[in-house]
Amino acid sequence: MSHITLGCTACGAPHSDSMATLRCTLCRSPLEMRYTNMREGSSGSQTPDWAGPQIPLPIHGADSMVSLGEGNTPCVELTRLGKLLGLTRLYAKLEHLNPTGSFKDRGAAIMMSVAREQGVTEVVEDSSGNAGASVSAYAARAGIKAHIFVPVSAPPPKVRQIILYGAQAHSIEGSREATTEAAVSYCTERGLVYASHILSPYFLEGTKTFAYEVSRELPQAPPDHIVMPVGNGSLFIGVFKGYGELRDAEHLSEIPRLHCVQARAVMPIVAAYNGDKWSPPSTANTIAGGIAAAAPARKQEMLDVLGATGGVAVAVDDEEILRWQKVLAEREGIFAEPTSAAALAGLDQLVKRGAIQNSESVLVPITGSGLKDATPG
Amino acid sequence: MSHITLGCTACGAPHSDSMATLRCTLCRSPLEMRYTNMREGSSGSQTPDWAGPQIPLPIHGADSMVSLGEGNTPCVELTRLGKLLGLTRLYAKLEHLNPTGSFKDRGAAIMMSVAREQGVTEVVEDSSGNAGASVSAYAARAGIKAHIFVPVSAPPPKVRQIILYGAQAHSIEGSREATTEAAVSYCTERGLVYASHILSPYFLEGTKTFAYEVSRELPQAPPDHIVMPVGNGSLFIGVFKGYGELRDAEHLSEIPRLHCVQARAVMPIVAAYNGDKWSPPSTANTIAGGIAAAAPARKQEMLDVLGATGGVAVAVDDEEILRWQKVLAEREGIFAEPTSAAALAGLDQLVKRGAIQNSESVLVPITGSGLKDATPG
Repeated sequence: MSHITLGCTACGAPHSDSMATLRCTLCRSPLEMRYTNMREGSSGSQTPDWAGPQIPLPIHGADSMVSLGEGNTPCVELTRLGKLLGLTRLYAKLEHLNPTGSFKDRGAAIMMSVAREQGVTEVVEDSSGNAGASVSAYAARAGIKAHIFVPVSAPPPKVRQIILYGAQAHSIEGSREATTEAAVSYCTERGLVYASHILSPYFLEGTKTFAYEVSRELPQAPPDHIVMPVGNGSLFIGVFKGYGELRDAEHLSEIPRLHCVQARAVMPIVAAYNGDKWSPPSTANTIAGGIAAAAPARKQEMLDVLGATGGVAVAVDDEEILRWQKVLAEREGIFAEPTSAAALAGLDQLVKRGAIQNSESVLVPITGSGLKDATPG
Repeated sequence: MSHITLGCTACGAPHSDSMATLRCTLCRSPLEMRYTNMREGSSGSQTPDWAGPQIPLPIHGADSMVSLGEGNTPCVELTRLGKLLGLTRLYAKLEHLNPTGSFKDRGAAIMMSVAREQGVTEVVEDSSGNAGASVSAYAARAGIKAHIFVPVSAPPPKVRQIILYGAQAHSIEGSREATTEAAVSYCTERGLVYASHILSPYFLEGTKTFAYEVSRELPQAPPDHIVMPVGNGSLFIGVFKGYGELRDAEHLSEIPRLHCVQARAVMPIVAAYNGDKWSPPSTANTIAGGIAAAAPARKQEMLDVLGATGGVAVAVDDEEILRWQKVLAEREGIFAEPTSAAALAGLDQLVKRGAIQNSESVLVPITGSGLKDATPG
């Protein structure tokens, strides 16, 4: 008997455990994972080095895990950057050192493990970059054929990476939304599984492990604040879920405040947080491609996370993003992609406006590698 | 009192612990590290998660460590590739997931930690790519100014990475040797420290940690064989040193056979191993830039390692390297730089000629990330 079911994030309706179901059949809202019948050890895989609390996972045995060594990323103190920002305790979790260069590997590992368990042999995903590369790599490792739909505007190095993993890249003209529509049509026509990093509830079960690791790496206390770049929210929502589980299991009493940083050109969450109307401009260009999501499917969940943790949503300019990318490299030796540097630009703003106090501890995930972006030097 | 001295690898003469001394003052041979007065805990840093045997390190306290979270890289089984090669136990250690994308970070972390301990504020290094990026990043983290000398032919993404870390890149016309000469002259003229990843004995103290980790990750027994791409030998010699220490401390009885793979265009070690004369052709081009060392300073040490472990040296063609790069990505989801794929091409050869038996266990390091090379896709 499976220890998991899926549930609607809006109306709560239950759905059975299947890669094929991505939205509530009643109200079309995204789904989330629910665990039942949890027994010690029933949830399968923990990484070999893992010595923290049991992590509930949606796989049925340790052998099911399709792993490339994701997770267990370094957590380092940023002393020099902290000084610059006036913070006494600033930490970075180096998610760009995951197997394909981004935190997406946490989600793809679990999602593709479930796919293999469920006998899936061919999947479809759409992505402007990191998620596509990640799903391609884990599909290769699992022996599953992957089709990745990318906008024609995607950075060539990211598309090359997808193709090198043996996935089929489908380049789509038009908006980011047109790419998603093309992927969905392709699935429907051919009866294939849509392994969407945005909609799949399995993906979030992977990203939640971030919270478990931080709780082991900073064992004295969780950080007071985590400042994240946010687009479709696959890390933001996953981290909240992980902390929720840790709190429910009484491993911590309070969840860190989870703050959301977006690029000024694409800021639906910031606008909604501020109660402003926002519609994407016709040329919504930003250097932070990883968070350029104009109509995120899990928007309401992200607003709920902000509300539940007392987080703040801020928007930052591209010039600030590029400036912080350079500062991070020059002062700490860390080469992040612009999307990741957005978090530091946002942190700067949060400190200046007093949302974060100098004596409080702050953690920033470095979500993606600078090596994957054709940025300046 | 320091627990270390340096010793000549050829005549054995002792030298004092200093970043400034790179060759024996008597016979000009490269130096190696020697530990004296070792006491439990005297050797400073172990990584926080480390639970293996004590690692002797040339630093004087845990606070001295300049770390970006290097090491503790994943060790994964390559089931599908093993089947293809006819091997029942094939493992890869994912060194390309180190902070700047190569195993060089192990060496640079220790070398720059020692530099900071010794009060060095400015260093010079020469590199065609990975080592330059690595020294730049750790110099940034340590607050040390770095000058990196690169051949004009170095891949632009690697040079961009160096500059982004705030290091000064000096682009030099002519051969790889001309770049080294320019770096050495620059040091001499300005009285700067030459932080050479090739000559510095401190660098090898970092790369030796690879062996300690493997001994923890495959605890039932060390692998029968380790197959490595070899240029200047900073990993090859370091791994041998690590295993030597583990054997001396009675943590293992036998050192794995360490095999050396070079590109056919630049194969001084293979030629010397076979007893052939070899001189670099005027256009010694290979896609495996990381091992294109025509006159390696530690050549004799590498031959000694082959002799001591029963290793074999083989040369591989560029077409084979590119083929294995693609096979590794498509079958296992691992995107390596061509230099790393050379090891798999060499492994294929070693199995075919019977130097490695099908039932024996084999480990291959994935030395550098495919993201840093402008290779096809």
